[in-house]
Amino acid sequence: MYQSTADPWSATALDVKRRLSSLRESGEPGAVATVVDVEGSAYRRPGAKMVLTPEGDHLGGITAGCLEGPVVDLANPVFASGEPVIETFDLMDDDDEWGLGLGCNGVIDVLVEPVDDSWDAVLAALDTGDSVATVTAVDGDAPLGARAVVETDGTVATPSDRAGLPDGVVEAIRDEAVDCAETGTWVARTVSAEAGDVTVFVDGVEPAPEMLVFGGQPDTGPVSNLARHVGFAVTVATARGGHADPERFPAADEVLSLRPANLGEHADERTAVVLMSHNKLDDELALASVLESDAPYVGLMGPRERFEQIREELAADGVEFTEAQLARVATPVGLDIGGGEPVQIALSIVSEALAVLNGREGGRLRDREGAIHGEREIIVDD
Amino acid sequence: MYQSTADPWSATALDVKRRLSSLRESGEPGAVATVVDVEGSAYRRPGAKMVLTPEGDHLGGITAGCLEGPVVDLANPVFASGEPVIETFDLMDDDDEWGLGLGCNGVIDVLVEPVDDSWDAVLAALDTGDSVATVTAVDGDAPLGARAVVETDGTVATPSDRAGLPDGVVEAIRDEAVDCAETGTWVARTVSAEAGDVTVFVDGVEPAPEMLVFGGQPDTGPVSNLARHVGFAVTVATARGGHADPERFPAADEVLSLRPANLGEHADERTAVVLMSHNKLDDELALASVLESDAPYVGLMGPRERFEQIREELAADGVEFTEAQLARVATPVGLDIGGGEPVQIALSIVSEALAVLNGREGGRLRDREGAIHGEREIIVDD
Repeated sequence: MYQSTADPWSATALDVKRRLSSLRESGEPGAVATVVDVEGSAYRRPGAKMVLTPEGDHLGGITAGCLEGPVVDLANPVFASGEPVIETFDLMDDDDEWGLGLGCNGVIDVLVEPVDDSWDAVLAALDTGDSVATVTAVDGDAPLGARAVVETDGTVATPSDRAGLPDGVVEAIRDEAVDCAETGTWVARTVSAEAGDVTVFVDGVEPAPEMLVFGGQPDTGPVSNLARHVGFAVTVATARGGHADPERFPAADEVLSLRPANLGEHADERTAVVLMSHNKLDDELALASVLESDAPYVGLMGPRERFEQIREELAADGVEFTEAQLARVATPVGLDIGGGEPVQIALSIVSEALAVLNGREGGRLRDREGAIHGEREIIVDD
Repeated sequence: MYQSTADPWSATALDVKRRLSSLRESGEPGAVATVVDVEGSAYRRPGAKMVLTPEGDHLGGITAGCLEGPVVDLANPVFASGEPVIETFDLMDDDDEWGLGLGCNGVIDVLVEPVDDSWDAVLAALDTGDSVATVTAVDGDAPLGARAVVETDGTVATPSDRAGLPDGVVEAIRDEAVDCAETGTWVARTVSAEAGDVTVFVDGVEPAPEMLVFGGQPDTGPVSNLARHVGFAVTVATARGGHADPERFPAADEVLSLRPANLGEHADERTAVVLMSHNKLDDELALASVLESDAPYVGLMGPRERFEQIREELAADGVEFTEAQLARVATPVGLDIGGGEPVQIALSIVSEALAVLNGREGGRLRDREGAIHGEREIIVDD
């Protein structure tokens, strides 16, 4: 099985979240480093996180590797004091010989905070599949790191392990925080409060994308391994109870045995579904089920003709799909990368699923018009 | 580090080749199962291989998992006798409820052969980056498994551990075998020889694709890990001698320290190059160097503007690129899948590199006109 956390730079937001959860459960000390501002086009954008422990372990990359050493050093007083710190790393080089916009130059602000109860509302929301926004004082007339957590319904949680934000700050930013939570974006704002001006970093934190793989054959292995590796929470569902052995799918977070017609119950608007049972009737029932769910991506393995047969058979049973439903079906499944090996087929499928969840088409970036990072990035005001 | 061989179905042709090499070196017994014919559109195509040992280990998937058990059984007499066997698996199901064209139905012919000296010419060619074709009797008036190996210059190697092909058979098929070797395709032909009619399976075997990653920062980790996982032979090259520690890049097959202007010496027509040194001058020298090589893919990390700066600076030094050279440059690097985490950036880069080596554009398969598998498949004659 892929150990996605063995290389710190291969760790995903899901890995970081799980490490945070385990630190909170065990009560062991930890720190979180977050990029809160970047000048120029960076390798990681604001909101990128790394979790650190006093033993020097770190998980997640906030630059391409150039800052992780200094950030490990920066975390040491945080373990000792429990107080957040912030540091501006100015890697600009006057002679212009260094890389442009690759995260090893530019100016990067990094906030390092203790793993304290200010994370509990975040972790609780992620556990139930909800988004949140953290609102954190990074400058001005409030203690550094003063925090509130805003849920998508506008509810505000305030931690007791550190200072709260001054009166009025959260109210002033609440609608924008809800928007950041819902879209997974960030914003920095300076808010005028009775106590003075406070600059807050608002960080929308979304649950990991989910992949629901339907099928019990060994070829689900490469797909579930790779999906987990790139940051999906992975469920393998099989119609064959005898196959639903978690040890057969070591990368899966959950292994289910179910009736194909019930598959849709396990998919929502964050779920990429891949149908690869190798059984036409099972795939047919599963397809009809997941197209009734909110799953934005439904990959169906097999040639076009198989999908046409499935459609005809469902139509004979009175099941017709709307245009909107058909638009969510990816068959033949995957991006057009031409690989024939099982792990290359998996690469093709997982890349397409991620692209569709991100609203992309999977073509080459060099041919893309406009910004690479798309519309989800919010520019900070000055 | 990713252990790409822990899951047999995630093993690549490169893994299979390396296991074969180690079995030949150690003299331990082994067998190779190869798909030699398929009726219908299958999960794996002819030429797909699995290597097996008497202990029941197997590496590589020749179907989606439905046949691997029977093939393990089929290999047992091969270990005992050293004689090849062939079996037709007819998984057709009359009631049409089973999957169409997903490799768990249809008719599949599997040849199981011993790991004997008939593989040595194949392994020697792959080790030097050359392609070969094996020509193997699968039916007719020749011993099953009788073999010759044809190199791309037409040279024929004949093993001593098993029967050779009847006189005239190799000569009749030699030009076609050279073509199969050069294109990585297969063909089956019935050849009339003095001894009678012999049906041969001609299997073009190509070396693994190569990825040459230029850069010594930790963000090369996710790229080299993932490239190795999907079947690339990976070299990490760095201009910083102090970074050229193989332990820093555990997935790399080779770690080099070199001058950027010499990078092109390590690239040929099978090499996908990724420039990610984060140093503009180094990337500039490396780019000019690899564009003089035959590398068909040169990914350059960073925004478009950085490439324009690099071009201007090279032009000032008198280095101008031809249209053909520019067509090989991928910048911004990667497929458009919208992921921002290091491992998602790696997914985007590795997918694009594989697509380009396969002559694809990386868009969605459902939008592709014509056959999914493209023009490299050769249909067997009857």
